[in-house]
Amino acid sequence: MKLVSFEAGGRARFGVVVGDRIVDLCPHFQDRGITGLRQLIAADALDDARRIAEISAPDWMLADVILLPVIPDPGKIICIGLNYRDHVEETGRTVTENPSFFTRYPESQVGHLQPIVTPLESDQFDYEGELALVIGRGGRRIREQDALASVAGYACYNEGSIRDWQRHTSQFGAGKTFARTGAFGPWLVTRDEIPDPGHLTLETRLNGTVVQHATTDLLITNIPALIRYCSTVLTLEPGDVIVTGTPGGVGAKRTPPLWMKAGDIVEVEISGIGVLRNPVVNEAA
Amino acid sequence: MKLVSFEAGGRARFGVVVGDRIVDLCPHFQDRGITGLRQLIAADALDDARRIAEISAPDWMLADVILLPVIPDPGKIICIGLNYRDHVEETGRTVTENPSFFTRYPESQVGHLQPIVTPLESDQFDYEGELALVIGRGGRRIREQDALASVAGYACYNEGSIRDWQRHTSQFGAGKTFARTGAFGPWLVTRDEIPDPGHLTLETRLNGTVVQHATTDLLITNIPALIRYCSTVLTLEPGDVIVTGTPGGVGAKRTPPLWMKAGDIVEVEISGIGVLRNPVVNEAA
Repeated sequence: MKLVSFEAGGRARFGVVVGDRIVDLCPHFQDRGITGLRQLIAADALDDARRIAEISAPDWMLADVILLPVIPDPGKIICIGLNYRDHVEETGRTVTENPSFFTRYPESQVGHLQPIVTPLESDQFDYEGELALVIGRGGRRIREQDALASVAGYACYNEGSIRDWQRHTSQFGAGKTFARTGAFGPWLVTRDEIPDPGHLTLETRLNGTVVQHATTDLLITNIPALIRYCSTVLTLEPGDVIVTGTPGGVGAKRTPPLWMKAGDIVEVEISGIGVLRNPVVNEAA
Repeated sequence: MKLVSFEAGGRARFGVVVGDRIVDLCPHFQDRGITGLRQLIAADALDDARRIAEISAPDWMLADVILLPVIPDPGKIICIGLNYRDHVEETGRTVTENPSFFTRYPESQVGHLQPIVTPLESDQFDYEGELALVIGRGGRRIREQDALASVAGYACYNEGSIRDWQRHTSQFGAGKTFARTGAFGPWLVTRDEIPDPGHLTLETRLNGTVVQHATTDLLITNIPALIRYCSTVLTLEPGDVIVTGTPGGVGAKRTPPLWMKAGDIVEVEISGIGVLRNPVVNEAA
């Protein structure tokens, strides 16, 4: 099942993608106080959503709505850095025993097909194609053998980075959370369709040219171990997002550097999930 | 005016501290859909709160309630690292032109007098006394000359850190957001009572012994410049928190290291604000 967050008819909605259409779940869950995907996941109501989608006529054409970030309002977005060996090597760093843990704020994300924005302050806007997972059941100190069962589903993420601001200090924070620099979509593919997230193919394309290509078996800290690590620090809640790291090929480490610029189209494709596509624009002065 | 978030009578509330009592603001703002301090600030209703407190009998004894983090549900907690020269020096780092920017999640905080918790995984639990500010009006690219007017008020923060996890990688994230390791309180002192946050005295005490002592004129990046910097990255919203950095004297850099342990009492006192006091406990196995 593919779940989307979207805007249509002047308000935020959530639904199930069926072909090129969407079954709007809002009217079906209104009386349970469920107003978005995060709440649907927290209510453990994905099976209800599936049954509704099977028997309902679609409400919207996918092409007619504005897609929002898969989870527009996650309580936590945990970003994992330096989790593919070829990326660690291109940055001149060394592999660490534990994963690198930092954060984006929700306002830094847009949905599929929405423009990502080069801010006025920089022209060093770089792509980072990544696999994102969304927590379902959640919990603290989740064991690796239970970790995949705690996932609601998977999506593509472009962890767009403002490199000069990322390098202002030792901490990546400022360069990793500029408004509307990241993309999260196109939809959430539920866990049942991806029994093994450790064997997916990830590709980032800039204007059709492949700039990153990897398989998720190359993750240094794999998904069960990431869930164990993050849930040791604090309780993972339904709808929390873990963005699992980017492979080699980022623009900053090319000679000359390859920055995204206005008019570009950037795509992150992951097998079994789909293609997240975003145009790049300059922020209006 | 001193504003608090608290639990009493089985639910979360917010109010104004008057001496040793609290005027409960919940009943007065219920019909406006304002259910907490963040919403009160977003509604620009601090003057209304002040008038209510002046004419109302107190509802609760301060000693009888459970104080929550000043803002229990901020949209963003932006932590600034390495912002006092003596702390930069004790860590062996060098001063950077721009501030170090990282994040805590709200679940990592407790209120005044609530225990902070050494997790099972570490005994390297360190204090960091800091001045926190809460955004009032918010905005993007706030100019330094407008920055102090965008603040709702100030509080004490103990940016409690799990040092071995902080050093797992180059990024501080994991060690900075363990559940219930930070403290934020005792209350929000509104901006009108602190016209110049650049001349406050900050002291951290562990079991009554002074372990950190500084004045906020020593901040490398001062408060207006921090607000400018953070609001360049993304829009600051009402109730967002900026934690401005800790001075020298942290436990990790002493010989031998000084870790907080169960039974300790840690206090962060800031002139014009008050004392944030927390006992330290071990997490139950």
